[in-house]
Parts: sequence; structure tokens; C-alpha cells
Amino acid sequence: MTYNVAILGASGYTGAELVRLIATHPSLKIVGLSGNSKAGLSMAQVFPHLRHLDLPVLTTIEDMSFDGVDLVFCALPHATSQKVISGLPRHLRIVDLSADFRLRDPAEYEKWYGKPHSAVEMQKEAVYGLTEFYRDEISQALLVAGTGCNAATGQYALRPLIAAGVIDLDNIIIDLKAAVSGAGRALKENLLHAELSEGYHAYAVGGTHRHLGEFDQEFSAVAGRPVHVQFTPHLVPANRGILATVYVQGDVEAIYGALDAAYAEEPFVTVLPKGEAPSTKHIRASNFCHIGVVADRVSGRVMVIAALDNLTKGSSGQALQNANLMLGLPETEGLMLAPVFP
Amino acid sequence: MTYNVAILGASGYTGAELVRLIATHPSLKIVGLSGNSKAGLSMAQVFPHLRHLDLPVLTTIEDMSFDGVDLVFCALPHATSQKVISGLPRHLRIVDLSADFRLRDPAEYEKWYGKPHSAVEMQKEAVYGLTEFYRDEISQALLVAGTGCNAATGQYALRPLIAAGVIDLDNIIIDLKAAVSGAGRALKENLLHAELSEGYHAYAVGGTHRHLGEFDQEFSAVAGRPVHVQFTPHLVPANRGILATVYVQGDVEAIYGALDAAYAEEPFVTVLPKGEAPSTKHIRASNFCHIGVVADRVSGRVMVIAALDNLTKGSSGQALQNANLMLGLPETEGLMLAPVFP
Amino acid sequence: MTYNVAILGASGYTGAELVRLIATHPSLKIVGLSGNSKAGLSMAQVFPHLRHLDLPVLTTIEDMSFDGVDLVFCALPHATSQKVISGLPRHLRIVDLSADFRLRDPAEYEKWYGKPHSAVEMQKEAVYGLTEFYRDEISQALLVAGTGCNAATGQYALRPLIAAGVIDLDNIIIDLKAAVSGAGRALKENLLHAELSEGYHAYAVGGTHRHLGEFDQEFSAVAGRPVHVQFTPHLVPANRGILATVYVQGDVEAIYGALDAAYAEEPFVTVLPKGEAPSTKHIRASNFCHIGVVADRVSGRVMVIAALDNLTKGSSGQALQNANLMLGLPETEGLMLAPVFP
Amino acid sequence: MTYNVAILGASGYTGAELVRLIATHPSLKIVGLSGNSKAGLSMAQVFPHLRHLDLPVLTTIEDMSFDGVDLVFCALPHATSQKVISGLPRHLRIVDLSADFRLRDPAEYEKWYGKPHSAVEMQKEAVYGLTEFYRDEISQALLVAGTGCNAATGQYALRPLIAAGVIDLDNIIIDLKAAVSGAGRALKENLLHAELSEGYHAYAVGGTHRHLGEFDQEFSAVAGRPVHVQFTPHLVPANRGILATVYVQGDVEAIYGALDAAYAEEPFVTVLPKGEAPSTKHIRASNFCHIGVVADRVSGRVMVIAALDNLTKGSSGQALQNANLMLGLPETEGLMLAPVFP
Repeated sequence: MTYNVAILGASGYTGAELVRLIATHPSLKIVGLSGNSKAGLSMAQVFPHLRHLDLPVLTTIEDMSFDGVDLVFCALPHATSQKVISGLPRHLRIVDLSADFRLRDPAEYEKWYGKPHSAVEMQKEAVYGLTEFYRDEISQALLVAGTGCNAATGQYALRPLIAAGVIDLDNIIIDLKAAVSGAGRALKENLLHAELSEGYHAYAVGGTHRHLGEFDQEFSAVAGRPVHVQFTPHLVPANRGILATVYVQGDVEAIYGALDAAYAEEPFVTVLPKGEAPSTKHIRASNFCHIGVVADRVSGRVMVIAALDNLTKGSSGQALQNANLMLGLPETEGLMLAPVFP
Repeated sequence: MTYNVAILGASGYTGAELVRLIATHPSLKIVGLSGNSKAGLSMAQVFPHLRHLDLPVLTTIEDMSFDGVDLVFCALPHATSQKVISGLPRHLRIVDLSADFRLRDPAEYEKWYGKPHSAVEMQKEAVYGLTEFYRDEISQALLVAGTGCNAATGQYALRPLIAAGVIDLDNIIIDLKAAVSGAGRALKENLLHAELSEGYHAYAVGGTHRHLGEFDQEFSAVAGRPVHVQFTPHLVPANRGILATVYVQGDVEAIYGALDAAYAEEPFVTVLPKGEAPSTKHIRASNFCHIGVVADRVSGRVMVIAALDNLTKGSSGQALQNANLMLGLPETEGLMLAPVFP
Repeated sequence: MTYNVAILGASGYTGAELVRLIATHPSLKIVGLSGNSKAGLSMAQVFPHLRHLDLPVLTTIEDMSFDGVDLVFCALPHATSQKVISGLPRHLRIVDLSADFRLRDPAEYEKWYGKPHSAVEMQKEAVYGLTEFYRDEISQALLVAGTGCNAATGQYALRPLIAAGVIDLDNIIIDLKAAVSGAGRALKENLLHAELSEGYHAYAVGGTHRHLGEFDQEFSAVAGRPVHVQFTPHLVPANRGILATVYVQGDVEAIYGALDAAYAEEPFVTVLPKGEAPSTKHIRASNFCHIGVVADRVSGRVMVIAALDNLTKGSSGQALQNANLMLGLPETEGLMLAPVFP
Repeated sequence: MTYNVAILGASGYTGAELVRLIATHPSLKIVGLSGNSKAGLSMAQVFPHLRHLDLPVLTTIEDMSFDGVDLVFCALPHATSQKVISGLPRHLRIVDLSADFRLRDPAEYEKWYGKPHSAVEMQKEAVYGLTEFYRDEISQALLVAGTGCNAATGQYALRPLIAAGVIDLDNIIIDLKAAVSGAGRALKENLLHAELSEGYHAYAVGGTHRHLGEFDQEFSAVAGRPVHVQFTPHLVPANRGILATVYVQGDVEAIYGALDAAYAEEPFVTVLPKGEAPSTKHIRASNFCHIGVVADRVSGRVMVIAALDNLTKGSSGQALQNANLMLGLPETEGLMLAPVFP
């Protein structure tokens, strides 16, 4: 059986990544693509790498028909997303890739995003989209909120450890290295090739990155008490990939055991042999997440290092994984593409 | 039906690319992998990006069994390849990715590769693997010789023009820009990141690149007279991609028409709208080839620009396309993966 | 003796490169910096890599005093430049890095830049800034028009050959590969890291690049007859560097001899041993230009390959070299910085 | 006055960087260059970017005369360095860039480098080359041991804090991101462009990196008690630069104050305004080190982030700074080159 899907905000990188993945998905058909500033253009004009596909022309959201659509991927900017989604037909399954429905507490949303949420009722309904930990709820959901890409990476490293009670909750540091596509196709000086290539630096320092809202919400929920991690992202000169080096305190055997148990049956999350460190190069353009566990020479200190592709497992691949669940399809369908190396 | 395939020389980039592509091919199963210097290792140890796959352990060629194998991909270095292939069971279908069986004239082989061919009889049998132009022969062949990646790119731009008689055969210049994976996983100083990144240069200048042997053979055969092009490759700081800017003399309408007619029905070769130039970014990690045609301001001068991924359409993707034909499978099976962008 | 200089348009890449070079120039002192959109900021805020220098705060041009200023570098966009320069005090020595005063014929300016020139009288006075070929005029000039960076590269390869009459003037092809800083610090989608890195393509194809105006003017003047070359620029994923592969017809000995003779005494232009090809990596961040000469296997065909750094020899280094001449300083002063490798 | 210097091991990256810097140093003249595997070649053959310089031909160390040489830079691999240096004339001033004389305790050397030291007496004499903290000793020294590049970066961030007693000595984490030239011009698979570009990963994990020997020695000496930091280096796809994100516990004002006081008069080390994070892009190819201090949202947690160029301030620039002191020259002579951006 084939399901019809539409993608709102198809002119950005996560939109293009969705199209790339769906292109070889056996059960999904793209019947609508929106991109307000590019309405009237073909996808081949906006993303020439997709020119071999037979795709609908880009339209405005207003001009899009949702008749016969089974599921909508919403790849719009935050704030815009909540407005658009609250106006969609209520029977539609929706996977939102923006930040708008990730935080269950409206006060937290306002704190991190600087303005009140305009669709508070829907915010309550939304299921947090970290598939491996919300599988049942996602299967039943009408609205799934895709996670932040950095937030996903940190959680893959830490959730099983917090759940198992094997680390000190007050001494968690996430030093994260992110590639540039996570910033989107935005015209900003610091995203220019000449500014970024051959250099790297920390950004959103001091605990100001918005994905901390997700860390706080999720880790506190898992722990049953407030957990506030340190989180410093860095921008590195690469296009795809996130590497989170997470510094924790605990027993390395217990830590390795908790991760190994949590992911033993997972198709996309792999715990490497003890002592091995993952590389973003080894999961690029795929839906896989690699996790390494290394004991430091300082007793009781452990590094958990997680690597994933921000556009795939961190965003559009995750969205498709969730869509598969929502539509009753095999969770891995269309997502077993091998990483691209070199 | 599933066919069993083996890959000889699986520890190089073209070997890894074959595994990547076959990983989601519905009708092929990898039953043997050789890598003499890495025998005994798993593919996950040699190429950690393939660790999610259930693959045979690497063996030596000597230890590999070909019972039940339907087709062998041979991704060995030239000179080695001819020795190995001449020792394989004669009923096996073989796609060779090396240079060993590309040149039909043993004298030409010796001229470009510096020593006599040791399997001259097989060399005669081999079919040149540029799929779109040798489709029927390939379907019937036991031994297909994959083309050089640069040679493929130049031929996609030029073969239809030579065949149609629309360009001056004595004034053809191929200025080619190649990414570094074409040089393989070799430990050479000029392939180091620190040496290559942020710089670029011509190499094999003056008409010394071995792929000229293929150009001479093929273009002369198409033209029915000797054709000797100028060919200058450049190494650019990227991992995948070849861009050939081909300077020809002729009428732009005739040139565009000849290319358009030649590729109108081809699933993998696309002629862009007139005046548009392709980018390697738009075909990366895919089996597609994009061709642009642009008239110069100088009357009667035309640029034909072809872009493809050296590891996919230029090598392992081509090999798989040929294997599909040899096995009676749909030619595009497993090869419709969309390019990876950004 | 120290000369006071001002830089107009100091917030762009060529402005920053001027500051970098002047920072260790023994005879120049920067007394004024303009950057209209950044007026009021320090250079450390606009270019943190310059924070160790004691520099004037950025002002608007209107607020800048030219009292005591000996020479002005004007690194403004074209069209803006002519307006600003025509309003400067007439005794000032000016080195303009824009395109505004490169073309002596106002009709040519209008043809290539799309609108009439607004300072035609000054345009006539301006000396073309290709130092090695206009040394005497530059020494006496009040207004020097810096060349296009691509235009400089092509001319270093070709001027001596045209002057010596050793090549066919009707068969000249310049296939040029340019790094991205040549496009400036502009917020354009195609200059983003995610769009450019790992890919490359031709642009301004078909003889539409504006630097052709310079080629036409200069080559025709040298030849004493109209010369119209083919010129196809490509954008490659690097920040600095231009490599021009120039295809000519003539005798390789005569060609090598003409270049060797022309540059034998030049401090910044080096002809490599015959058959060697230059790399942009070997002149990066320096004022040097390397030229290689290679005979093709096709008789009578020769490649002349020139490499320089677009921001240094192609722009700000050239500007400083000209300023040295205009101020009576040694031509090489402050410019002998060695290339940065790796 | 001009001093004569020789460089042993001039065919590696630190050797080439020394030549680059000395090229515009007003008081030093290179009179000898060794490179055993390249003996007989010119530097232009080994490093074409240096071809504009008039340099001695490379010789073996055995063939080099030290008559009239005032100072030797030794850029040889560790283990080799101690053998060569112990055989040099004893009056020579020597700056060693290898690891051989960094660790004062022979047992520590053996622990980290895997074999006994063969020149223990000289090891005791050697002065540790972190200029800002050993200035007086270096001025008097005959043998200065250049620091590890990572070790330098971490120490710039931490020494003043340990000395001032403003941080918890038992909770120090150095998460370091290093560019690839720090690994030298070695033919290793993981240093290939195709392997490194577009990916990044931790290496030498778990407290196994040899520069920990320097951290232990120096931090313990400053603290007057054993200090053992956590240190995890990462390899990022860039050629030059080290960024150390150091996680400490203490009061941000005290921390900022200690750093500010320590470096207020230093010509090469700059503490950025509070809350600003440095970028490797802003110190590239220069001898500057930028340090940022940021308070985390978690009370009492602070990040100190240090950036420098591994080949310059981390190695050859440091060596030259020390040589200046040893020769009685101004410490900054030849080292005020501005960073290269973009």
C-alpha cells in the first residue's frame, strides 16, 4: 500500500533530505511540496540534485490541497510551524521538524524561544519524537515533534545512563561538535565557506543553546528529579554530522552495560566495542547513530561519545522513522541506506 | 530471485562503494569479500561505516570459494587484476573495475601501462563497460571491463557528438577537475589532507594520463578515423566528483541536439536545459551524470560540461549497472539512490 | 619615512587583506578605515583576526578626514567606487581595487557593467594596475585601477606570448578555477559552506564574465589587433587561489622562452622548470605568481598554467605593490611574506 | 647583527614553518638545512611554496657543518632528536621541537614514549619552552625543549588559574579539537583527505595522549601537588589550529581576573572580552593565542577556551620566540605576522 505525504517547507535542507529519503521509500509518495518563497518553481530549480525525480511543483501552503494526504512533514521554521500546523485539517498525521512542539511546558517554550506559544493545546498533544524512547506513543500519535539534532545526540548518549542510575546527575558535560548544515540554508556571514572552512569555534556558549530546553525536560523526566547538564556546542568545518563527547562520572562497566542493554535490539543505534570512538564520517548521510564508551585514566570518569548525521538521524531520517511508525509501516522501511564514505 | 556476488579487493574505495550500493539492492547478496592485506578482518574493522551490514569476513582470494557465486566484482589494482581474473573459473560473470581489460589492443595496453598484458586472450573477449553505449554486448558478456572514471566522463560529453559528426575532431580539449577519491586509498603525500585541502593543481599534464588510451580507442572507433584529444586533469580538494569541461567547435544547436537525442531515454544521463552548467554537488554519491551545453561568445565554440561521481557512475555504480544487465535484472535496480546534498 | 594611508571599504575581504599586509609593512601607517555599514565598530569586532593591531575605528567615508593622508586604498564595490573617488581631494594618490577604472573605453564599461560610467574623466586618467606591465605609468599615477583577480591571472600567462607573437591569437582558451573569497563577503546562497564545500562547477559560462572586458582591452592592445579569448571560470571549494589553465597553439620552446624572458627579473612572478605544473597551495597568502608551461601530446598545443592568490597578488597585494611604486618605496616592501603551507 | 641558524629536519611541516617565519625575520639567516631522506634536494623540490627563497640545499646531518652556526632548530622525530642533539657541539644553542626534552623525569619519558631516554644528562639541562612562563630560564638556556602543541594550548588556559588557586584541581577537563597538520607529513591512512575531510572524531581517548605527560609535570609543579587532568583530543577537518575547551570549577570573576592579569602584558596571548569565544580562524598562521572565558548556566562552572595555530604558536613560532630570547633579540622579532583570514 502506498501512502500519500506532503512536505511543508521543502526548500530547506531538512525538506530536501526528506525528499532524498522518500525517493527510494517503497510505500510513500510525495503529493505536495510547499515553499512559500519558491512557490511556482520546480524542485529541480531549487535543488538540482533532485532533478531525476517526478515531484509536484512547489506551491504556497495556502494553495496546497490536503485531500488524500495521509501524513504531512512540516519542515518550517519555529514559530511559523505552530501557526501553520494549528490550521491544518485535524485528521492529518503530522511530523513536525521544527522546535515548536518539543517542549511540553509553555513556560519553557517561552523561556527558550522568546515568545508565548500560540498553539498551546496542540503542544500538549504532541509526542516527543525520539523514536527509540517514545515508540508506543509515536505509533498512536497524530502529531509528533521531531527533536533537535543536538538534543537527539546528547540523549542517545545519556538517557540509558540516567534511567539506569549509573552516573552522577550533577556532573554531566556535553561538549558537542556540529557540522554546518544544522544551521540551515540561511544567509548568515558565519555560514559562508570563506568564514567557516579551515576554522572552528564554540557558539551559543554558557548554557544558552535552545536545545538545553529539551535536555532539561527529558533528562529530568527520566531521572524523576531536575537535571541540568552543561552543554557547549562547537561549529566545525563539515556539512553533515554531530559528535557529542559526553563527560560523566560513574563506573565504566555499569555505563557500558546500560548502553549496551538499551540499544541491543535497536536497528539504528549501535554501541561500539568498549574503548572505540565513533566518527561522524562513519554515519554520514545515514540514519545510524554510533556510540562509544571510554574510561578515562582518571578513575570514575568516563566519556560517552555519540555520532549521528544531523540531517538524517538528527532530523529528516528520524522524521521518516516516526512516520513509518505512525502509518503502521516497518520502522526501518526506506531508512537502511548505508553511510556514504568517503 | 537473489544472485550471489563476490567482491575481490573489497578494502579499497571502489570495493566499499560496491558494498554500499549492494546493501540496498534487492536482488544481490554478497557471499564473498577478499582483501589480501586485510584478510581475517571484518568489513567493520576496515570500513566502520559498513558495520550495520551482515557481511562475510575478508579472506584472501586463494581462500575464497566461488561455488554458487553468480558474479564477481574485481576491484583490484591493474596488473594484479589480469592475473587474478585469468585464474577464475571460466563460467563466472566478471565485472572488472581495473584498467586491465579496457584497451582491446595489447600494444596500447603496454604503451599506457608500461608492461605487456599477461592475459591477452581474455582481453579480447572483454566488453568495454560504458553501459549506455555497449548495452547489448554487456548483456551477453562474461567479462566486462569497467571504464576509467575520467574516461567515462569525457565520453558522456563527446561520444554522441563524434557519432553525429557535429564537431571538429581535431580540436577537442578536455579540461577535467577530479576529486581525490579517484586516487584510491593509497598512502601518497599528495593525497594527505594537509597537502590537498585548500589547494588545487593540474597533474599528469601534457597528455600523459592513462585514460587517454581509452579516449583514443573509443573516439577513434566511433569516428572511424584516428581522434586524439587534449586532456588535462586537475586535482581539486573534494572527495567525490568529476567535472569535465570539454571545449569543442561546432554549431551549438547541432551539439545540443545530438546530446539530447542520445540521452533522451537514458535513466542516468541527463542533459540540462541549454546554457545551464552542472555541478558535482548535484550528483554526489549517485549514479547520475549531468551534462550542460553552453555556447561561447566566440562564434562556433561550445563548452560541453559533464559531471558525475567518480566512485558511483564513474566506477562502482557503473559496475553494478553492468552487473544488472549481465544477470538479466532491471538495469536501474538498486541504483536510483538520490544524490546526497548538502 | 612613514606614509599615512586610508582604506575605504575596510570591512570586506580585500580591505582586511590590505590591513594584514600593511601590518608588517615598515613604511605605511593606517590612519583611516571606512566601512559604512560597520561605522563605529572596531576592526577587532568586524575581523577578530586583526585584534592585535592598533587601528582606527571604522567610520563612514563622510566622517573621514583626508588631512595628512598620502594614499587611499579604495576597496568599495564597483559603481560605488567611482562616486566616492570622484569626490575625494584631487591631490590624493588612489589605488582602486574595484572594477570602475579598469576599462578605458566608457562604452566597454557600460557593456560589461550594465550602466554608464559616472566619472568618465577620471576613468581616462586611471592607469591599469598590472604592475609588471605598467610599472612606469603607475609610478607617476594619481589613480591606479587594480585589475580583476581572474584578469590578472590570465594576463600573466598570456601577455608575454601575445607580445612575442608566438601563439595563435584566435585559439586561446582560459579554463580558470577560482576559490571563493574572490566573491567577497557577500551573503549569497551559493557561497555557503554547505553549498560549496565538496562540490565545484563552472559559472558565468559562455563568455559572460566581466573580466573578459579586461582581457579584450589588454590583449588587443598588446597584439595591436582585436583578440577575443574564450574564458570559463569555475568555482572550487577553497578559500584562496586562482589557477588558470590556458590552452594555446604555438611552439613550446618559443612560448617558454617568451615567458622566461618576460619574468626573469621579476620578484613576484616565477616561471617553473619546463613541464612542471603550479599549485595554488604553493602561493597561498603570498604575492607570488607561479607559471608552468607544458607541451601537450598533440603537436603544437601547449598549456600555460598560472597560479596566484586572488586576495594577495590578484588584489590587495597587487594594490600594495602599486602603492609602493606610487610612493617611491621599494616595490617589494612588505610583500615578501612567504606562502602559508599547509 | 645577523645570526646564523640551521634547521635539522627541514622536510617536515614544522621545519617548513620555521623557514616561512625566518624568511622575513630581519636578524636570522638560514645557513644549513638537513633532511636525511631528502638530502641533495633543494627546498623548492620538497616545499615548492618556498621556491622564492635563497636557501641551502638539504643535506644529511652528518654532512652539515656547524661552524659559524649560532643556533640550531631541531625539528626531528622524537627518539631521533635525542640522539642527534647529544652529538652536536656543546656550545650550540639548540631549540628542540620534538618531545625528547620536555619531560624532566626520565621515568615519565619512558612511561609516555615507551623506551628509556638515551641522553638523560641533557634532559636535565633542558628548559621547558613555554615562553611566557619560562622566559628567564630560556634566555640563559643552551637547550630549550619546545612544548607539545596541544600541551601549550591547555597550559595557556590553565596555568594562571592553577597558580592563582581559583579552580578545583580535581575537576579539570580539556576537550581539545586539533587540525591535522599536528600529525605531521606522515603517510597514514587516517590523514588522507578522503578519510578526514567532512568527518571528525576523538582519538587517543581515555587519557593516553602523550601530551598528558607535559600536563602532569607542569600543572603539578605549578600547583605544588599532583594534578591529573582529563584530556580528550579530537581530529577535525582543518589543516591548522587547536581549540581547547577547558571545563573548570570556580568563580568566573576570579578566573577571568587571573587570566587577564597573567596575560595583560603579553604580546602574543590575548584574553578576549568576557563571554566571547575564540576561533581558530582568527589566529591562523600567526603566533597569537586567543583565550575566552565563559560562565556556564550551571553555577560555579566555567569554560576557558584557548585557540592557537599548532604550527606557529604551538610549535615553530614558539621555537622562534624562544630563539629570539636565547640570542638576545627582541622577543617578538619576525613574529608579528597577522593571521591569515579567510
